Amino acid sequence: MSQKVLIHGATGETGSDIVNGLTEHGGFSLAALVRPQSLQKPATEALKPRGIEVVVCDLANQSVEEIADILAGYDTIISAVAATAQLVQLKLVDAAAKAGIKRFIPCGFTSVSPPGGVMSIIRNEKEKVYQRIWFHHLPYTIIDTGTWFQIAFFSLPSGKVDYAFMGEGNTIFGDGNVPSLMIDKRDIGRLVTRIVNDDRTLNKRIVLHADVLTQNEIREIMESKSGEKLEAKRATHDELMEKMYTARAAHRANPADPRLRFPALSAEYNVSKFVRQDNTPSNARYLGYLDTRELYPDFEPNTFSAFVEELLAGRAQRLYQDKFDFLRKKAT
Amino acid sequence: MSQKVLIHGATGETGSDIVNGLTEHGGFSLAALVRPQSLQKPATEALKPRGIEVVVCDLANQSVEEIADILAGYDTIISAVAATAQLVQLKLVDAAAKAGIKRFIPCGFTSVSPPGGVMSIIRNEKEKVYQRIWFHHLPYTIIDTGTWFQIAFFSLPSGKVDYAFMGEGNTIFGDGNVPSLMIDKRDIGRLVTRIVNDDRTLNKRIVLHADVLTQNEIREIMESKSGEKLEAKRATHDELMEKMYTARAAHRANPADPRLRFPALSAEYNVSKFVRQDNTPSNARYLGYLDTRELYPDFEPNTFSAFVEELLAGRAQRLYQDKFDFLRKKAT
Repeated sequence: MSQKVLIHGATGETGSDIVNGLTEHGGFSLAALVRPQSLQKPATEALKPRGIEVVVCDLANQSVEEIADILAGYDTIISAVAATAQLVQLKLVDAAAKAGIKRFIPCGFTSVSPPGGVMSIIRNEKEKVYQRIWFHHLPYTIIDTGTWFQIAFFSLPSGKVDYAFMGEGNTIFGDGNVPSLMIDKRDIGRLVTRIVNDDRTLNKRIVLHADVLTQNEIREIMESKSGEKLEAKRATHDELMEKMYTARAAHRANPADPRLRFPALSAEYNVSKFVRQDNTPSNARYLGYLDTRELYPDFEPNTFSAFVEELLAGRAQRLYQDKFDFLRKKAT
Repeated sequence: MSQKVLIHGATGETGSDIVNGLTEHGGFSLAALVRPQSLQKPATEALKPRGIEVVVCDLANQSVEEIADILAGYDTIISAVAATAQLVQLKLVDAAAKAGIKRFIPCGFTSVSPPGGVMSIIRNEKEKVYQRIWFHHLPYTIIDTGTWFQIAFFSLPSGKVDYAFMGEGNTIFGDGNVPSLMIDKRDIGRLVTRIVNDDRTLNKRIVLHADVLTQNEIREIMESKSGEKLEAKRATHDELMEKMYTARAAHRANPADPRLRFPALSAEYNVSKFVRQDNTPSNARYLGYLDTRELYPDFEPNTFSAFVEELLAGRAQRLYQDKFDFLRKKAT
């Protein structure tokens, strides 16, 4: 019998990659957990013709018992929710434990970092979800992705790649020589497909591993593929730390404002990746992660070089089409 | 060159077992980190003729830099501090990272349980120390011991084993059939010796595994070895939970009072072990622990049966000779 997989956040940036990976592979019975208020959305409607059952669930208002009834019978739940919605998973975990789910994949899907304050916003929220899983002895796999190619590239003087560029210009952090685990986000679903079919990954942390690149290497690849000379500001480690402390303080003074949350979160990511060097293969090993390069040596992930060629050919896509418009002030 | 090992808490219940294991094995260069106010204590004095260097350090008042200078040159630090002193390790961790210590063994040495509220007092404090280790990327090994034989046995109607008995009479929790990882505390040091000489244990969690016994099995072993019929109260899981909630509330209302801390901590242990079934080989595997039975199949730990024979022969010892006198009201 095919594995019954329920996806929470199936229409989001990561969730849609996971749906793509699972449908491309085939052999799964797929369903998407959808809020009542999202039922009529085009992205939800688009799931049905692809053979994905839409399952309505109101996590905010239904009881754990009611939600457990909805979850009963699924083998695997994969949660890939927005950065602002991590803690809605707590009730889902309670219900999944009650329903006897065989594997719960919480919303990791981020760069590697330790719990406990380094990433005081989103990573701490994820840790609360993991601790709830362990509280219930619920079988799980935590999957982290490193950095997506799609947000790690630089803009070019010609403006050629700005159609897919997020953010506010290029910045090289420190000496630009810190390595970072990276992946083409379209490979996330393909690797998740391997992981949910693999008993070795049960009750483990996994990091998806395609490339490990420094900012200087990213720059060199882009310059050599484009023939352009890239312009970039520099930011020292002290400047990154200062920016993080300032953004954190503003966020903590007004935690409900998403315009303050995102800069704090983003500054914490930069410190974690480029000052602390958390998002590296050696730190992943140190923190107990298994590595997909070792688990699936036959899997050939897309390389950053190949991604840059697509990008220059105009075939990449800008992420978060509907969201974070406030971030694009400078880009548009 | 022999491995230089510095022990924090060398004269405590666990620390002295570790010192015994390391000296019995030999081949280590041993030192004990001692507070200025403990320098003249007989237990500290007794370390010197055994070839253990006494190193004075005032964790409360010295700076991280000063402490790092004291720690510099040691390969391994093992911390085995009192249940009330877990958080003094935070500064020690900061200093160990600064000094480039090759392996830090924090004060785990307890039963298996997940972080995040199950054991809201001591386990949460230990987790803070672990998170500080991960913050620094400090090489580490977390070692948990399960339950000591020395606190898991029952008293007998004859009073024969009361000379070594702590607590307030016998209680069987629930149906008495929950298995628990157990060890003779004298084997802790022998297994720690294996672990600090073993690269496979670096950056891992390890559980020491001798016996796995239920309370009913403990009862049967004691009855069969002594020929006595054991008397025990019963406590249901609901009663254990209720006792925990009450003790927690009292502790939280007055957190500085050790007479309120210990009952809360003890009630949390009982719920974790006997209601939640956290201290089992399968839960240890689930939480990512390696098991000394698998790592060291040639190591023959003392069995609970053999321990009971020693106990009946009058050759066991009461623990915490100088401490927790308030716990012995009923026993003396």
